[in-house]
Amino acid sequence: MVERVLGVLGGMGPLASAQFMVRLTLLTPAGRDQDHLPAILWSDPRVPDRTAARLGSGEDPLPALLRGIRGLEAAGCGAIAIPCNTAHGWFGPMQAATRLPILHIVEAAAAELRRLGVAPGRIGLMGTAATLAMRLYQDRLGAGGWDCLTPSAEAMQRLVTPGIALVKANRVAEAHAPLAEAARDLARQGARAVVLGCTEIPLGIAAGPALPFPVVDTIDALARAAIGWARG
Amino acid sequence: MVERVLGVLGGMGPLASAQFMVRLTLLTPAGRDQDHLPAILWSDPRVPDRTAARLGSGEDPLPALLRGIRGLEAAGCGAIAIPCNTAHGWFGPMQAATRLPILHIVEAAAAELRRLGVAPGRIGLMGTAATLAMRLYQDRLGAGGWDCLTPSAEAMQRLVTPGIALVKANRVAEAHAPLAEAARDLARQGARAVVLGCTEIPLGIAAGPALPFPVVDTIDALARAAIGWARG
Repeated sequence: MVERVLGVLGGMGPLASAQFMVRLTLLTPAGRDQDHLPAILWSDPRVPDRTAARLGSGEDPLPALLRGIRGLEAAGCGAIAIPCNTAHGWFGPMQAATRLPILHIVEAAAAELRRLGVAPGRIGLMGTAATLAMRLYQDRLGAGGWDCLTPSAEAMQRLVTPGIALVKANRVAEAHAPLAEAARDLARQGARAVVLGCTEIPLGIAAGPALPFPVVDTIDALARAAIGWARG
Repeated sequence: MVERVLGVLGGMGPLASAQFMVRLTLLTPAGRDQDHLPAILWSDPRVPDRTAARLGSGEDPLPALLRGIRGLEAAGCGAIAIPCNTAHGWFGPMQAATRLPILHIVEAAAAELRRLGVAPGRIGLMGTAATLAMRLYQDRLGAGGWDCLTPSAEAMQRLVTPGIALVKANRVAEAHAPLAEAARDLARQGARAVVLGCTEIPLGIAAGPALPFPVVDTIDALARAAIGWARG
């Protein structure tokens, strides 16, 4: 039995973190309940909007993020996974505030690119406007030789931002068309694979026909990293 | 924003409690993250097998269940939902050990029967061998006028028990055929609806074509009860 308890700082959005728990379970080799990983999901959708805080005048989410981390520490967790890309804009202060390792979702995505055999070169990157503006992915993946192409401002406003909002509003099926169109645009511009760098995006993408090019699902990528940690 | 925090004592099995979080989210009327319900999922698949404990010589799960309840209390939860029917065999000692209300899954299933408009009379009941032997459902639903028909010993051994085990082993697609066959048998014997009284069963049933009679999904039923509690 695995004795390391994974802490999941979630609720950002709640459907993405619930789906993270589903994928964590399904990706774990297990024959019965007792072979699965103990985990605690702190699903707090009250955390102030990360994009509004970073790009505008929204309330700072850090105090709410730190409350969740304290809760996961008190519950006995040994590491923390955060299935929200934009929240990684506060990775530094979160990691500085806890002795628990926080698994970084961008490192998990890079591992997934390698697992999928995506060669260095041009790839697509989708995410919230804040994630793209903070360059959470571009510099880290650039160091690995992947050159990130991002949606135009027009595509962000017409397709990606509304698609993410539809998932957060439980309108998952409607989110497929705009999100898939944005991904296809990037492939048309030469991206060999597209990183779905916001955990709402894979939910919308999965609600319709599969895309004809590799995508990095950051929910699955983080789940694989967490399983790797738990099995030590 | 909802300020009541739901505690979810899960991991029994982990896929069922993860799916409970998905359904809790999707059944909540919400337009953005901050409209969703705060919840903490204590997913501890190490809890000793409930059926083995009740029917054989398995280790008592109560200490592990109470550890989870203590954790959810310490995290600030206001009520507890347990998406595992068999664990409700320990409902009395769990409720006696906490001041937090525990939402009873059988009451949630009865509410769902009423919501679906299932008239009193013969219905089918599937569950673990322990849930059926403890009569968790039969007496409570009988008081509401529903007469529970259960699978034969042969059907339990050949279809229901293996179907539940397949879900716990992540072999969800393979679980559909045996579980659906057991449900159809009950309908053929006159059941107007079938209660899926083990939270693994709706996962297997959902992995194939829909059944041509009403079923009570105890994951959804408990999620609706939890949303009702949270919204006061």
